[in-house]
Amino acid sequence: MRVLGVDPGLTRCGLGVVEGGVGQPLRMIDVGVVRTPSTDAVPQRLLAVQIEIDRWIAVHRPDAIAVERVFARNDVSTIMGTAQASAIPMLAAARLRIPLALHTPSEVKAAVTGNGRADKAQVTSMITRILRLKEAPRPADAADALALAVCHIWRGGAHDRIVEAVARQRTTTNRAPSHTRRTRKVT
Amino acid sequence: MRVLGVDPGLTRCGLGVVEGGVGQPLRMIDVGVVRTPSTDAVPQRLLAVQIEIDRWIAVHRPDAIAVERVFARNDVSTIMGTAQASAIPMLAAARLRIPLALHTPSEVKAAVTGNGRADKAQVTSMITRILRLKEAPRPADAADALALAVCHIWRGGAHDRIVEAVARQRTTTNRAPSHTRRTRKVT
Repeated sequence: MRVLGVDPGLTRCGLGVVEGGVGQPLRMIDVGVVRTPSTDAVPQRLLAVQIEIDRWIAVHRPDAIAVERVFARNDVSTIMGTAQASAIPMLAAARLRIPLALHTPSEVKAAVTGNGRADKAQVTSMITRILRLKEAPRPADAADALALAVCHIWRGGAHDRIVEAVARQRTTTNRAPSHTRRTRKVT
Repeated sequence: MRVLGVDPGLTRCGLGVVEGGVGQPLRMIDVGVVRTPSTDAVPQRLLAVQIEIDRWIAVHRPDAIAVERVFARNDVSTIMGTAQASAIPMLAAARLRIPLALHTPSEVKAAVTGNGRADKAQVTSMITRILRLKEAPRPADAADALALAVCHIWRGGAHDRIVEAVARQRTTTNRAPSHTRRTRKVT
């Protein structure tokens, strides 16, 4: 399976494509960062990111897209741009009917380093080893995008099946049990 | 001038089209609300909103788009969806080269009621009178979208010229003076 990982952002949006499967060696197909100048208007910046993401999807034809789940409690000075940028891979996935999954930063860190509280240097170091790269991917946003794709492959289809089962249950239940509601994340 | 007002949201996205100019009578062209079920996945909900906004732009061919500025301090349970939805009119405006302006809720309230802290009932009541409607637009999101369009027309081109001048200054200055940075809004 081929996965496009997206670390959303307006100043820097990390993109990484990884191919492989659970129990198979993983291979990096491409990695990069889209940058847009903060002096440009937000609509122009969003469009620039969209053009690049659409191009990556057309070139690499991923089987799935993995996006970092953005939390409302993150840094408020950048949260709006990050949230707006995260809409772009979502719109592309829905339009092209490509499965999309969100992974939290701690899920990604746990998947690639075994520690949900690993720092950026540890994630970059492990990604470099896992994908047998000659050089560490730079900047951190690029490594994060690859880590998202690796996380998605290693979590396999099981996660999606759980998400789908929960969604089905929600649709058929008038009111979800309180523990489900409490653990639901802000998307 | 014809303006499309957008009150962004995933559960309810208000859309309103108003035609007129400063010192001229205003006329409502269309008003509506896009609703998406909370049981659907966010990508599907964003795509549903995008399809409707693109359709409204194609049908009404607005000269400008006015979007409510979303603040990071708003209700955290809905802020991510609202921020993601606000990216949709921005992407359309940038793609189609339609001027887009953001107006804060208090700017909109002040423009249509004279009071930046007016409640929803006051805004709806004034919009009904300003546009000489037979019935008050419902729900509040629809009235808010019309109020955004009216606000944009009444603020005229002056606001955009100020925004452009500030943007030019920012581009030519290495570091903006502290009072500019402090008053800059999170988009």
